[in-house]
Amino acid sequence: MQDNKTAPYLDPSSVGIVKPQVLRFDEPLTLECERILPSFELVIETYGTLNADKSNAILICHALSGSHHAAGYHSPDDTKAGWWDSLIGNGKAIDTSKFFVVCLNNIGSCHGSTGPTSQNPATGTIYGADFPLITIKDWVKTQVMLADRLGIAKWHAVVGGSMGGMQALQWSVDYPDRLARAVIIASTPKLSAQNIAFNEVARQSILSDPDFHQGWYLQHGTYPRRGLILARMVGHITYITEEAMKAKFGRDLKSGKFMYGYDVEFQVESYLRYQGERFSKNFDANTYLLMTKALDYFDPTRDYADDCLSDEEALKQTLARTQCQFLVISFSTDWRFSPERSIELVDALIANQKSVSFVNVDAPHGHDSFLFDIPRYVNAVKGFLSAPFIDQTHATKQPKVRYE
Amino acid sequence: MQDNKTAPYLDPSSVGIVKPQVLRFDEPLTLECERILPSFELVIETYGTLNADKSNAILICHALSGSHHAAGYHSPDDTKAGWWDSLIGNGKAIDTSKFFVVCLNNIGSCHGSTGPTSQNPATGTIYGADFPLITIKDWVKTQVMLADRLGIAKWHAVVGGSMGGMQALQWSVDYPDRLARAVIIASTPKLSAQNIAFNEVARQSILSDPDFHQGWYLQHGTYPRRGLILARMVGHITYITEEAMKAKFGRDLKSGKFMYGYDVEFQVESYLRYQGERFSKNFDANTYLLMTKALDYFDPTRDYADDCLSDEEALKQTLARTQCQFLVISFSTDWRFSPERSIELVDALIANQKSVSFVNVDAPHGHDSFLFDIPRYVNAVKGFLSAPFIDQTHATKQPKVRYE
Repeated sequence: MQDNKTAPYLDPSSVGIVKPQVLRFDEPLTLECERILPSFELVIETYGTLNADKSNAILICHALSGSHHAAGYHSPDDTKAGWWDSLIGNGKAIDTSKFFVVCLNNIGSCHGSTGPTSQNPATGTIYGADFPLITIKDWVKTQVMLADRLGIAKWHAVVGGSMGGMQALQWSVDYPDRLARAVIIASTPKLSAQNIAFNEVARQSILSDPDFHQGWYLQHGTYPRRGLILARMVGHITYITEEAMKAKFGRDLKSGKFMYGYDVEFQVESYLRYQGERFSKNFDANTYLLMTKALDYFDPTRDYADDCLSDEEALKQTLARTQCQFLVISFSTDWRFSPERSIELVDALIANQKSVSFVNVDAPHGHDSFLFDIPRYVNAVKGFLSAPFIDQTHATKQPKVRYE
Repeated sequence: MQDNKTAPYLDPSSVGIVKPQVLRFDEPLTLECERILPSFELVIETYGTLNADKSNAILICHALSGSHHAAGYHSPDDTKAGWWDSLIGNGKAIDTSKFFVVCLNNIGSCHGSTGPTSQNPATGTIYGADFPLITIKDWVKTQVMLADRLGIAKWHAVVGGSMGGMQALQWSVDYPDRLARAVIIASTPKLSAQNIAFNEVARQSILSDPDFHQGWYLQHGTYPRRGLILARMVGHITYITEEAMKAKFGRDLKSGKFMYGYDVEFQVESYLRYQGERFSKNFDANTYLLMTKALDYFDPTRDYADDCLSDEEALKQTLARTQCQFLVISFSTDWRFSPERSIELVDALIANQKSVSFVNVDAPHGHDSFLFDIPRYVNAVKGFLSAPFIDQTHATKQPKVRYE
């Protein structure tokens, strides 16, 4: 039993050791920007077992910095679990003893699927700055190709937090008959001007770094490390809350007294710099730009609503076509995508008499709350995924799912 | 009368054409960092007339990017009034027909008073990165020297918004018998960890700009323009509100359609870049660093409260020594220094049975509200400054000053 303590992959609730797979798609993919990827690869991980009628598959969509590695470990020595291991596993919110869980790395990312650091088959050189901008809609299109490849006609659920939730929402409008449930967590029907403003600061940090070279840094043998550090620092402030920062660092000084200089003094400075530096070592700058732009562009009403409508009416008109059941979850302290943004979505679904459960979870972690196994949150997801699908029930604004 | 329309300085409520004065101080100034400025200069402007017993003088303290030029115009052709012209003038909130108003540029700034772009008399070269860090307490010390020079034993009031409010608060504890009133607007008794985090991103933007050269950019013939632009962009997001951004820009596109690139697309991006670029042309990078550090360090309890006390108790103990009447003003949408931060100050004053009026003004402009002539705000300041000084009345949390 000693081993159980030292090897977390042996924990009965863990999906254990997992191995990514690479799937190659040779058919050309026409993107929203009208450019064409002649072929692409997706790296995926799967957990659990697909049942005979292929009706128990759940798709996990990742957020800005996420990857296909959502749960489990890559080797017996690996101590760092996948990014959503708190929710995915045996008996967990997304229960791998019941469901076949699929997580992919999206194209344009930098964790193995085709992206700016991949080779462009047309030129034989790395895509770099020439990699096209990808939208949420494009990602969903590739995820449909993935479903087809796996023989999954209809997902039991499509699930995601933050930008992952946007993909789940886009699925529900673009392919309404191919998912039974959508779980949209800590997300928004579209970004606010302030959200775009923060993304723009992050982008300008990278774009104005002299080592960026218009995105051709790999060819120049440089890397816009400073820009990425700044981008992550400003992003990170928006992921957590003022209260969480106060609780974690307050105004504590590293050395206990003022140094009257610009080296790290306050604990919060040290933390932010650490987050920025760590991120800058593992993330591609072109990918960061592309991801923030996909966020800014996200607006599922563009294809389905009349131009002249108000935001509310446009969202209502767009969601009329959805057929799945929705679970929408927000977190009380999330100021990046506040509960009000989730309520916009819930209200538009209710106005369409769609089936929607809404849970606003009290949690101190701000936007990052979706990564934590908070009991009310975990139970809401678990209950929603296990409940039978009831076609077109009348929706109610009262949360249907409440387990404490 | 045609001229009145084209020359705003002729408006009867304007202080008209004003001329800055330079005051030289040759006595050495020992700073909190224990370094000594052998001499320094202050640029000031004054409006109105000092009365015979010198009892009608009001000191205006500026915020991060402010200057001595708070009201009026520098020439008949000048169309841009001083930064607080909305509040300072004949019949305005700070009424120059009654009061002698003094505004200075603080040392360490870049608008004329001794700062990083000044010549170091010890070396004959520009201070640059060698200019010492200045604290709010240091500024107040120089403002006392200014009061002495002007023969003002006791200010009728010390008034400031944001970082200016911090100076007014520091005055009240460091020199309690030298001011009758303190007006502290859109300010805070000290910065939160999140405030410091935003400042740290701004500083890192400048410090990591290759053109910064450890602060010796003037000597290198360069200028960290990119860093200053980023610093101002991130700062600017915190000065206004999500709602104001939505009202002003929404998600409007400059060209009406997505460009699938990283040039300016959304109106809010264009606005932020413009703010950043404009600021970077008029502000010294070393000054920006110094100012943000002065903000981060600000904590009047450091000299007056026992180390072991809670934040609340420390503030209470510190404010026990104050003798002036306080007007504290916050703005409902200010998320940089929220109304809660003003209430902390008000509560600590009330706990000491000090005279304090508190007004939380509904205003849509966020932190920047203190620069606008919002009627309730203007009337509160005007009423408070005109009311007779009542020594040590018992304070009440109910606003005493209410004029709509």
